[in-house]
Amino acid sequence: MRLAVIPGDGIGPEVVTEALKVLAEVVPSAEITKYDLGASRWHATGELLPESVLSELRQHDAILLGAVGDPSVPSGILERGLLLRLRFELDHHVNLRPGRLYPGVRGPLADPGEVDMVVVREGTEGPYAGNGGLLRKDTEQEIATEVSVNTAFGIRRVVADAFARAEQRPRKHLTLVHKTNVLEHAGSLWSRIVEEESLAHPDVTVAYSHVDAATIHLVTDPSRFDVIVTDNLFGDIITDLVAAVTGGIGLAASGNLDITRRNPSMFEPVHGSAPDIAGQNLADPTAAVLSVALLLDHLGERESARRIEASVAFDLATRDQNSPGSTQAIGDRLAALVSS
Amino acid sequence: MRLAVIPGDGIGPEVVTEALKVLAEVVPSAEITKYDLGASRWHATGELLPESVLSELRQHDAILLGAVGDPSVPSGILERGLLLRLRFELDHHVNLRPGRLYPGVRGPLADPGEVDMVVVREGTEGPYAGNGGLLRKDTEQEIATEVSVNTAFGIRRVVADAFARAEQRPRKHLTLVHKTNVLEHAGSLWSRIVEEESLAHPDVTVAYSHVDAATIHLVTDPSRFDVIVTDNLFGDIITDLVAAVTGGIGLAASGNLDITRRNPSMFEPVHGSAPDIAGQNLADPTAAVLSVALLLDHLGERESARRIEASVAFDLATRDQNSPGSTQAIGDRLAALVSS
Ligand SMILES: CC(C)[C@H](C(=O)O)[C@@H](O)C(=O)O
Ligand SMILES: CC(C)[C@H](C(=O)O)[C@@H](O)C(=O)O
Repeated sequence: MRLAVIPGDGIGPEVVTEALKVLAEVVPSAEITKYDLGASRWHATGELLPESVLSELRQHDAILLGAVGDPSVPSGILERGLLLRLRFELDHHVNLRPGRLYPGVRGPLADPGEVDMVVVREGTEGPYAGNGGLLRKDTEQEIATEVSVNTAFGIRRVVADAFARAEQRPRKHLTLVHKTNVLEHAGSLWSRIVEEESLAHPDVTVAYSHVDAATIHLVTDPSRFDVIVTDNLFGDIITDLVAAVTGGIGLAASGNLDITRRNPSMFEPVHGSAPDIAGQNLADPTAAVLSVALLLDHLGERESARRIEASVAFDLATRDQNSPGSTQAIGDRLAALVSS
Repeated sequence: MRLAVIPGDGIGPEVVTEALKVLAEVVPSAEITKYDLGASRWHATGELLPESVLSELRQHDAILLGAVGDPSVPSGILERGLLLRLRFELDHHVNLRPGRLYPGVRGPLADPGEVDMVVVREGTEGPYAGNGGLLRKDTEQEIATEVSVNTAFGIRRVVADAFARAEQRPRKHLTLVHKTNVLEHAGSLWSRIVEEESLAHPDVTVAYSHVDAATIHLVTDPSRFDVIVTDNLFGDIITDLVAAVTGGIGLAASGNLDITRRNPSMFEPVHGSAPDIAGQNLADPTAAVLSVALLLDHLGERESARRIEASVAFDLATRDQNSPGSTQAIGDRLAALVSS
């Protein structure tokens, strides 16, 4: 197993260290190559993602990313030039974001019920296509456009993946989240493809929710969701809400998958670089550890993935929620649990 | 005061009846003209918003709308052909959505704190511009686009309005919600205009939140928000979440304002037509009543508006949350409180 690791900025390196500690317990033979990308490289060299690094990354089985982003870099530079560029260059069309409220974890909801869903967010098109522009800049007649690009090809592959995942789950339920009553063209294409794919998966029940209504359901009745499939921007928005509802982005893992396996998939905690607490041994590495579980699952190491998840579940159920311990302490605990 | 009333579909007529009952207590001289628009007119005549009706609506001081939408009408027809058409034809550029957690009201959050914010949602552009299309329909090469159109003119007027509102509020705080790190062109225009307008309002503190992060803050720390200004689609999404957090869309009022006053503004509860409970005297008319308060405030009847709000606040603090009473009973109570 050849893994590329991009520790990145802020708390990225700290949580990655713990995640690799846990990984070493289950796959001691994993070959790790670290890549220095992010704010400091950009400051030092102006480089975001050199072609040579991109080709090297392609030679790996998977990528683990800590976090990118730093207040010293203008907003958008690292996001578009590094994070989104990786997702687009490596054709990470399925952005997989599980949302599970683990026993013992207190989220913000008074009465959340059982929450165990997975969001399949499209990762390579929609309003993220980078298709837009400015006209008459810096005049009172300035116009800015952003074009959401949605293709049958791009939608079908994530919808098919979402149905396949729903089929594997006990409830076999899939919800399309969109805004079909306003975004009529993209909405029509998404709806028709979900309808078509549902014919191939008659055992999966299908529901639809407008994105605005979905935010209501996510805080009043999150248990209703099993698998959600949605576009890139709606997925960005609701997965942060899902993370909040299930105890915070400190626990949320994600996978950026090329399900054709032509390119390595990339796994990252949903939390950002959290520069305010960086370098202080304060960040919770749990999301990074859960991202390793997703990585192993994707590479077929199901048994190891399950073991990590079970260890995390045990730790979350038994840890002191108010002071779960330092980054390193949590990593040590999880590594010990995994190896036990 | 000449008011046009569009009772609309589902629970619309029921809640509007109660709202007008309350209005009659404070402005008995109001002249009310009802307009039959919505699902039944569309079924009967195919008409959504005839030009003649639109011209008549323009002759009024304001419009009160119950709700539009019915499962018998394909999704999008009434929304785009009636509701959004009214907003666009009447240049309702400021979509005003207060979010206040009234004492006594239980929302879904375990520990919400004090919530009292107002969202200024742009109402006439962004991805709602209806600018998009389908190419190669019904082939595997189909492409759907949706263009978000953002103009300096359109953004400046709502940002200026949001600053003016912030200035009137005790906390004088304004948060721009956008996704500037991804939607770089629209994000740049919104950010620059907020920066420019902030120079004219030095007493207002300004913050920025990505829309995804905003959904987290809205459930973990909603008190941080005072005035939010945002685009049409982000505003649509987060105002439903704000409504949920403050006790549900059953209580959320909104105003679609033409702040130039060239066209009548339109006031509507945020809840939809709720066809499942229509005609059963079950709907809570509180949001419709609060929409009347917004209407009166907009028309300069501040005193009457305050009186309605205070009556609603009293009723919410004292009603049995589990069985607040029938539509009519709540309307009767609020009317009695307002007249007392
Ligand atoms: C950092 C940003 C570009 C990114 C996104 O919008 O996809 C993040 O919010 C996420 O969800 O991974
Ligand atoms: C019904 C729909 C078109 C509308 C919108 O998207 O604006 C609604 O969700 C709202 O928020 O008023």
